[in-house]
Amino acid sequence: MKNSKIRVTVWNEYMDEQKQPAVASVYPEGLHKTIAEFLNMEEDIEASTSVITDAEQGLSEEALGGADVLIWWGHVHHGEVEDRLVRRVVDRVQRGMGIIFLHSAHKSKPFMTLLGTTGYLSWREAEERCRIWTASPAHPIAEGVPGQFVLEHEEMYCEPFGIPRPDDTVFISWFQGGNVFRSGVTFQREYGRIFYFQPGHETYPTYHNKHVRQVIINAVRWAKPVAQIAARDCPKVEALEKI
Amino acid sequence: MKNSKIRVTVWNEYMDEQKQPAVASVYPEGLHKTIAEFLNMEEDIEASTSVITDAEQGLSEEALGGADVLIWWGHVHHGEVEDRLVRRVVDRVQRGMGIIFLHSAHKSKPFMTLLGTTGYLSWREAEERCRIWTASPAHPIAEGVPGQFVLEHEEMYCEPFGIPRPDDTVFISWFQGGNVFRSGVTFQREYGRIFYFQPGHETYPTYHNKHVRQVIINAVRWAKPVAQIAARDCPKVEALEKI
Amino acid sequence: MKNSKIRVTVWNEYMDEQKQPAVASVYPEGLHKTIAEFLNMEEDIEASTSVITDAEQGLSEEALGGADVLIWWGHVHHGEVEDRLVRRVVDRVQRGMGIIFLHSAHKSKPFMTLLGTTGYLSWREAEERCRIWTASPAHPIAEGVPGQFVLEHEEMYCEPFGIPRPDDTVFISWFQGGNVFRSGVTFQREYGRIFYFQPGHETYPTYHNKHVRQVIINAVRWAKPVAQIAARDCPKVEALEKI
Amino acid sequence: MKNSKIRVTVWNEYMDEQKQPAVASVYPEGLHKTIAEFLNMEEDIEASTSVITDAEQGLSEEALGGADVLIWWGHVHHGEVEDRLVRRVVDRVQRGMGIIFLHSAHKSKPFMTLLGTTGYLSWREAEERCRIWTASPAHPIAEGVPGQFVLEHEEMYCEPFGIPRPDDTVFISWFQGGNVFRSGVTFQREYGRIFYFQPGHETYPTYHNKHVRQVIINAVRWAKPVAQIAARDCPKVEALEKI
Repeated sequence: MKNSKIRVTVWNEYMDEQKQPAVASVYPEGLHKTIAEFLNMEEDIEASTSVITDAEQGLSEEALGGADVLIWWGHVHHGEVEDRLVRRVVDRVQRGMGIIFLHSAHKSKPFMTLLGTTGYLSWREAEERCRIWTASPAHPIAEGVPGQFVLEHEEMYCEPFGIPRPDDTVFISWFQGGNVFRSGVTFQREYGRIFYFQPGHETYPTYHNKHVRQVIINAVRWAKPVAQIAARDCPKVEALEKI
Repeated sequence: MKNSKIRVTVWNEYMDEQKQPAVASVYPEGLHKTIAEFLNMEEDIEASTSVITDAEQGLSEEALGGADVLIWWGHVHHGEVEDRLVRRVVDRVQRGMGIIFLHSAHKSKPFMTLLGTTGYLSWREAEERCRIWTASPAHPIAEGVPGQFVLEHEEMYCEPFGIPRPDDTVFISWFQGGNVFRSGVTFQREYGRIFYFQPGHETYPTYHNKHVRQVIINAVRWAKPVAQIAARDCPKVEALEKI
Repeated sequence: MKNSKIRVTVWNEYMDEQKQPAVASVYPEGLHKTIAEFLNMEEDIEASTSVITDAEQGLSEEALGGADVLIWWGHVHHGEVEDRLVRRVVDRVQRGMGIIFLHSAHKSKPFMTLLGTTGYLSWREAEERCRIWTASPAHPIAEGVPGQFVLEHEEMYCEPFGIPRPDDTVFISWFQGGNVFRSGVTFQREYGRIFYFQPGHETYPTYHNKHVRQVIINAVRWAKPVAQIAARDCPKVEALEKI
Repeated sequence: MKNSKIRVTVWNEYMDEQKQPAVASVYPEGLHKTIAEFLNMEEDIEASTSVITDAEQGLSEEALGGADVLIWWGHVHHGEVEDRLVRRVVDRVQRGMGIIFLHSAHKSKPFMTLLGTTGYLSWREAEERCRIWTASPAHPIAEGVPGQFVLEHEEMYCEPFGIPRPDDTVFISWFQGGNVFRSGVTFQREYGRIFYFQPGHETYPTYHNKHVRQVIINAVRWAKPVAQIAARDCPKVEALEKI
């Protein structure tokens, strides 16, 4: 039944730099299309895509309207996303839409707005090996993911990571060059669940890796809205007991 | 030695409505003056005040420059605080300045920006009794505070409270009309410590209560910056190990 | 399909004092039977019961063997539960079995062993009114539970509650006599999920309340094992990279 | 003034294997003596030592009586520590004594009893390099500790680490062989603060490293009791409001 599927919108900048050969050879139609494609192979998920050059930067009411979960990939064009659209995304998350921030989205406006931090870290692009360790094997996002898996090449991100104390630290990454990073962390803001996952530099085939895909699929299932929204304003209420 | 004192800036809206008889009879010069006064009775604290009608809405570099901890009381004029000044406050907190949000500051721009939530709750002004229970007696903010104390009249705030999972829930309040509220909660954002404390409606003598004062004094000591700031940008770094 | 149901064992002391008129008039066959009965009305749950007078105090391999979730109600006979059986229960929780501690189970051996605290609190039996507030409306355990509901009579438990910082504080209770209590809190220990829920004094019809039932049903679904167990010993492992 | 110093007891097994050449060449009088020695160089700390061959296994009322903080190093003889003495240690922690578990103490009885988990992990002794990264630079335990420091040789411990969700993850370690570990984590149990710190294999000069020493000194200051103990039993209390 179509209506019971988890509806996912995969948002990507997808501007000029993502169409250059180094990226296009890995993700011919953009990494958002690759992500949507493997999500759509799951029976319980229905994914569509939108990009920054779409109407309202791909964040129109239509694009977001039915989304249970939004996946966000951005990098070079973080600053161009309009504040009113950031507000719209943040408001939807607070009202229950799940959001999955991938890789360089740690500096996106919605990430910083929802977490109240600047997401600082240090980084390096050096064709180095990354090993992703499962720190919380009982977390639903780790289901079916091995204790450790390898990405032969990934951009290095390193601690300290400028985030609030996570609700759960699901994954921690080891980098060949001597660094570590909390690469899979969860948060909640009002009704909305948030997952940040570090792997996914645009010139590496990360989103073709089966374990990375499993993590994202699991995260979609975990992040889908649990509750109907109660009032989120500040109502004046009557006393229940005699004063 | 003067330099070793904890420098506190107590910020208050202090517009017309706070100068009306109902408030002025309780806080003749404004509640910010009352708070600064009892803080200045502590040997290790040096408090000054600023208000929204000061230069740069009381949030100038000069007013904030030396502050280890900022105390924030606002209500009717939340929306008038300029975004660039909110940005300044938030940036200072992220770099280590402690911040204590009092009472209706749960809807202030800095509160919502730092927490990523809207701080919703329900409320009532009904001259009702409030009992404040210490849920975390070992927390430094509870030092010297009894297991429970009474405010004969306080504005009621009730759960659910639209905040992220707190680092610590120090106090929980009971209200005569049948409500409960997590009235003392802590958070951290990058280098800065955050404490929210619910009591303090402007027409009640809450800030004359010795236990409320002890909580605020403790919170100032707890919230003072612990660490020197490391880089908060995203530097590119060299590998430490051979790749 | 029977095998896909969540298997629950409801354990109760059910000694002489629970068979006395004051209790028997509310729970003729014991509160464990009442709880199992409403759980068994759910299509996805299959509940059985065991009591302290059963073989191996109701905690035999057979009684626990197939349990996805164990519900624990005890009070007067906490001290009589054999340490080797406590060890068995704790080990199963660490390996993924969910456990729901009800009411006075805060002083049971498995509770204190899993949490590392003594579960202290203060209490009163005074036929007083209790209001249970949902503090985390987006938590799965709060699904379908109103923002607040009333128990006309419940035993009072009050803060401070001697527990570690909870993962989530789902419910907070208001008591007529002036007290508050974190009445619904979650924890995790290795692979096992833990929920403590305060209501349920044996002489009150608490487990006949539809909201209390909904909470317990939700908790069963939330606490069922998520992950298959990885090794829980301390294996020596080979290096993955050249040293 | 002597009385205002933080009193630390450094407990070590210090049995035959710790007196063998491989250890004795690094810690001639035992690593407990080395740790106490550098702690005693701090003006505000007064450290003594005890070992498993002392009266009551070094955990007598006299040895623990005045301790604000207990440091625990054990490995081969975990199982020999008497349960009644474990109970004594745990009880003191719950009443406010800080405890710092070093290295292989993750399998000690007090560790497992306080945390409610078995502390599983995987390990390797391979003379490999370890890099300790500061994940929470604003935490008091990280004060004066660099963003990263190196131990040329350390025993490898790897995730998943069988602990509850930590209050704070202060350090995360990188190992040359491809592994990662949350090497500095904090917890609280009732009034007592707990810090686990991974470095410290007995055949390596880890406790001669100035950064390791700084971490332990910081941890002692952080773990000292904050609050006086309120009642930890379950008193019956009178109603504060009319029922």
